[in-house]
Order: sequence, then C-alpha cells, then structure tokens
Amino acid sequence: MKFNIALLAGDGIGPEVINEAVKVSDAIAKKFNHEITWTPALTGACAIDAVGVPYPDETHEICMAADAVLFGAIGHPKYDNNPSAPVRPEQGLLLMRKKLGLFANVRPTFTFPSLIDNSPLKRERIEGTDLVFLRELTGGIYFGEKGRRDNGETAFDNCVYTRVEVQRLAKKGFELAMTRSKKLCCVDKANVLETSRLWRETVQAMEKDYPEVEVSYEFVDAVAMRLVQWPNSYDVLITENLFGDILTDEASVISGSMGLMPSASVGEHTSLYEPIHGSYPQATGLNIANPLATVLSAAMMFEDAFGLKAEAEAIRAVVNKSLEQGIVTEDLVAKGAKSYSTSDVGDWLVANL
Amino acid sequence: MKFNIALLAGDGIGPEVINEAVKVSDAIAKKFNHEITWTPALTGACAIDAVGVPYPDETHEICMAADAVLFGAIGHPKYDNNPSAPVRPEQGLLLMRKKLGLFANVRPTFTFPSLIDNSPLKRERIEGTDLVFLRELTGGIYFGEKGRRDNGETAFDNCVYTRVEVQRLAKKGFELAMTRSKKLCCVDKANVLETSRLWRETVQAMEKDYPEVEVSYEFVDAVAMRLVQWPNSYDVLITENLFGDILTDEASVISGSMGLMPSASVGEHTSLYEPIHGSYPQATGLNIANPLATVLSAAMMFEDAFGLKAEAEAIRAVVNKSLEQGIVTEDLVAKGAKSYSTSDVGDWLVANL
Ligand SMILES: CC(C)[C@H](C(=O)O)[C@@H](O)C(=O)O
Ligand SMILES: CC(C)[C@H](C(=O)O)[C@@H](O)C(=O)O
Repeated sequence: MKFNIALLAGDGIGPEVINEAVKVSDAIAKKFNHEITWTPALTGACAIDAVGVPYPDETHEICMAADAVLFGAIGHPKYDNNPSAPVRPEQGLLLMRKKLGLFANVRPTFTFPSLIDNSPLKRERIEGTDLVFLRELTGGIYFGEKGRRDNGETAFDNCVYTRVEVQRLAKKGFELAMTRSKKLCCVDKANVLETSRLWRETVQAMEKDYPEVEVSYEFVDAVAMRLVQWPNSYDVLITENLFGDILTDEASVISGSMGLMPSASVGEHTSLYEPIHGSYPQATGLNIANPLATVLSAAMMFEDAFGLKAEAEAIRAVVNKSLEQGIVTEDLVAKGAKSYSTSDVGDWLVANL
Repeated sequence: MKFNIALLAGDGIGPEVINEAVKVSDAIAKKFNHEITWTPALTGACAIDAVGVPYPDETHEICMAADAVLFGAIGHPKYDNNPSAPVRPEQGLLLMRKKLGLFANVRPTFTFPSLIDNSPLKRERIEGTDLVFLRELTGGIYFGEKGRRDNGETAFDNCVYTRVEVQRLAKKGFELAMTRSKKLCCVDKANVLETSRLWRETVQAMEKDYPEVEVSYEFVDAVAMRLVQWPNSYDVLITENLFGDILTDEASVISGSMGLMPSASVGEHTSLYEPIHGSYPQATGLNIANPLATVLSAAMMFEDAFGLKAEAEAIRAVVNKSLEQGIVTEDLVAKGAKSYSTSDVGDWLVANL
C-alpha cells in the first residue's frame, strides 16, 4: 500500500522524537512492502517564528490531503508565562483540531509489566489496568464565546454542546466498548451543569441501540477519585473536552510511563497521532527524549488509520523488547544501568524489528 | 464563651456522624467551660421531603444567626439517576453556599502516620504531604447562566468571574500561605480560558503585596498529574470552583483516609464545617459510618471560627489516639482486628478526651 503522511514535528523535542518514529515507520513499511511519503509542515512556535501564525493554511492543506498526520509536540517557554500573548502555539493546536474536525481524542492508559513499579500507585491497585478515554475535542468551553465585560473587570467563557456533538462522540464510545469489555462510563457533572444533563440524556437515549453495553454515569469529581483508587475498574470512558483534558492527564500517571503513552485524534477528515507528552523544552536538542510514545503513536496509526494490525503489532513487540532489555532513555533507566540516547533507541528498534 | 451553632445533619449517614461530633464538642465545651447551643435545621433530601425545598428560608435564618454551622452530608439515591429532577438536594447546597456568602472552601489534605499504608499511593510519594486547597465556591460555571436553545438540542453553561471575586479568594490564599511555608500555587487553564487569564492577571497583580510569598502558576491538567505524582511538592493551592471540585476530590485519595478529611467554607457571614465525604446512603442507620471527619471538622470550627486552638488540639489529639489504638470503624480497621460502631467511636473519644 501507499501512504501520504503529514509530518508535524512541532517544537522542543518534537523533531527528535518524530525522527525516530519516522525511522521505525519506514523500516516497517519496507518490511511489509508499503510505501510512505512524508510531507513535513510547520505548526506551533516554530510556525509563529517562520510565518507569524501557529497553524498556517499551507499546513492545513497538507494535513487535509494526507492519509494521516503524525504530530510531535508544540509549545515554547517564551510563551509560557504570558497566556495573554496575542499569538500562542496552543491556538494553533485548537485551530488544527477544529479545522480538521478531530472531534474525538482517543487516549489509552495501560501498564507495562516491566515498568509497573515506576508508577506512584501501588502495584496491586494498577495491575491489569487497560482503559481508554474518548475525550470530545472540538466543542465545549474550549470553543465557546469568551471575552471581557465591564472594562475588563469581568471575564466569561461559554460552554456549549449540541446533541449532535454528543451523539457522534458517544457513538465512537459505544462502538469501542463493543470491541472491548462492553463497559462504558459517561463522565459528567449532571448535578450542576446543563451541558452535562444534555450529555447524560443523549447517552441514555443511545443505550437501546447497544443493548449489550453496560453504561454507567459518574460525576467528574468521583471519577477523579476512583481513577487513582481503582483504575482497573474502568474500561471505556467518554467525556467532554475540559473534563477529558484533566482526567486523561491524571490517568497518564497510572502507568508511571508518560513517556510511553500514545494518542489518536479522529473525526471527520483525516486522523492525527501524537505522544501525550509535551515539547519538554529543557531537553531540546540533547538527544535524551524518550521516543517510544511517538513510536507507539505511529503503531496506532498503522492499525487504526490504515487497518494494518500486523504492522502495528510488530512495532509494539519491538518496543516491548526494548523495554525488557533496558534499551531505554534516561527517564526509564533502572538505577545504575546505562541509558541510551533518543536516536540510539530508534536505531535499536529498527535493527530489531 | 457561649456559642450558637446551627446543626445541619442532612441525609444518609449525616445524622449519625453529626451526632458523634456533637457529643465530642459538648464534652470539649464542658472541659473548657464553654456553653454551646445547638439549633438543628433541615437541608437536603430530608428538607425536600418535609417542606418541598432543599434549603428552606427558616434554615437560612438559623444559619445566619449562628456563630458557625456544622454540616453533615446531603444526597439521596432517589435523586441520583435523575439529574433533571425539578428539585434536587444539590440545589440546596449551592443555594446555601451562595446565600451564606461562603466563597472559599478550605480543604486540607494530610497524611496520618498510622494510616499511611491505606493510601493507593506509595508511602515515599506521600510522606509529609500537608497541602491546602482554597476552592472558590460561589462563582464560575456553577452559578453562571445555563439553559437550552434550539428546542433543547443545544445546552449551555456560562462561566463568569469578576476581578473582585478572584481577589477575595486569592487574598485568603496569600494570607494562609503567610502562616505556612509561603508557597502559593494558582491553578488555572490560562492557555485556553479567558476567566483563567483574569485569575492569573489578578493574582499576579497581588504578588507585590505579599513579597515573601513565592507564587507559581500551573495549568489544571498539569496539577491533576503532579498532585498524585508528588503531592508533597504543594502547599497552598487556589483555584476556581469547578477545578477545585475535581482536584480536591482527587487530592482526598492521597491520604487514603477519606473518612477522616474535614473541610471548612468561609466567606462573608458565618462559616460552615463539614466532612468531605458524602451521605453514603447504603450505610444509613447501620451505625457503621466513620464519624472522625465530622469530629475533625468540629475541631476546625473551634480553631478557625472561635479562635480556640487548645480545644481543637485536644480533639485532634484524642482522634489520633483512637487511630493509634485501633478504636475505628470498619473502613479503617486492620485485617483481622475488631471494628467499632459509629457511636462506640464517639463514646470512646468522649471518655478519652
Ligand atoms: C495545550 C492545551 C491547549 C491542550 C488542551 O488543553 O487541550 C493540552 O493540554 C492537551 O490536552 O492537548
Ligand atoms: C454535590 C455537588 C453539587 C458538590 C459540588 O460540586 O460542589 C460536591 O461535589 C462538593 O464538592 O461539595
């Protein structure tokens, strides 16, 4: 098969981790007789520096024309303590999500047997955890009207959801639950928010179309608790944009291996794959960043965007092998053991595929 | 001294845990020569059942006339799966907060040395944790305009904050930080929300009035992570209503002893003290609920509302003694040991004060 993949390396360690994911993807393509064309494009702080906007039209066209997008990370310290800067890298991210129609962010959380003791949580609490968040990504308070009144003394952010927005996200949740343990949890704050009541009534009305799926409804504050108490009691969780932002980051702590967690954003047009970690500016250019989350995001891309399960499994298998044999960057290295550079890890993966 | 305390037992296990806190408070009052008048009043589901509304005017008048309010818990399963019920216990809670002007919810999180292994988090991650959340409690998306448009197909919730609302909450945060380790963290989502940008700029402008306080600004998703990774890196945290709802519940997991965590809500008029746990309906009337969080809430009341530190310390000391000697309800009992009933624990505390 032939694929055209948009390559958005972004800022900070983005280019370094993307580089290793490209090496591994090319090696897999060669092995399985596929042909990948990579089309690089600018986004984030580097796009602001180059052309003045964080998500240039040209980048958007490249993404729209691609079979999938592989994304690194964005963000630069020069914007960090100035959330009111007129142009910010995050705006590019939000614009990209909206314009590409990426309404569902898929975030698996699972444990790696060889790394389970890295977690701040006790082994017996997390063993067997294998949950997936589906976070709504193009609605809610992120995209509602916002602004100031009373000479800047009053600020507001409007949270808005339509039934259709909830339905399309929930549909993906039900479908995913059907391929897994048939358990779906709708996370909301229906005891306080009208948008949450719309979420809940919409999901309740869809239950009859998936009679095998057992649906539970939990308040976001209760989930924030239970997620770190008994993470393995969850399977598929669906939630709105802001709750998803908070809970998926909380969940990423469970595995103790944030440098390993991949994610996908899917929706109306193309789909996008990215590590959940950020641009880690302090490590830029040092060749120390962990490339595995990006490599595993590429595996998700092969499986979900291209339907190539064997290719995805081959990538996951070699990643597991590297973890077991300790061919890892400094963030994962066992006490006293040798750590490998970003590119060393990538080279090892390619050599051992 | 003489005190008039409004007693809002509420629903579920509320009356049982309140009962023990009253016993302990009366014993302390006797020992230190104070005189307490308790004025019971209805709130929650029991108020809906009795008079049709969850926070009756009479209850409000009793609270306004009191030196402090001691609160149990509210909520009843008959409302749980019906968030659209026209009258709900939670509305009483929100109305009470608003009408009493309780704009700051104070939630300490700390570990009990004798219970540290109850936590789902590893001992080395939580040892020494002693943090306090100040959650804004009468503004934000909880109280903004909410409703439906397009024949019910679109729902909205407006999040609104004024500079004055942020200032009065932040002032309490700075003042609390001055009495502790002089570290303050402002939790927001200033990279996305205009209300958060107002929070951040308001707190930034207040820094000059507290030159000794070291202020940090962190995004809510990052805090949701770090809170369970390195809770003891935090001291005082200030945040808006909804973020506070989620993060304080997440934080309550750290100690592993939710049945022990007290809280206070303070503001313009009187102040209110309550355990952080809910009404635990399944346990109603069984005399098994843990009364210690309510007893410790009474200790906070003695110290913060009445300025009686010795009285508060005496309560805390006897609670610690009960924990060390294993005079605890079934939720805290060590494997194989005997558990005590709610009223047994209260009796023991009174006898050992
Ligand atoms: C950078 C920020 C705007 C973004 C979000 O809040 O969605 C990030 O936290 C994420 O989760 O991808
Ligand atoms: C019951 C609910 C309305 C309430 C809230 O969200 O404030 C509760 O979760 C709390 O934190 O006291």
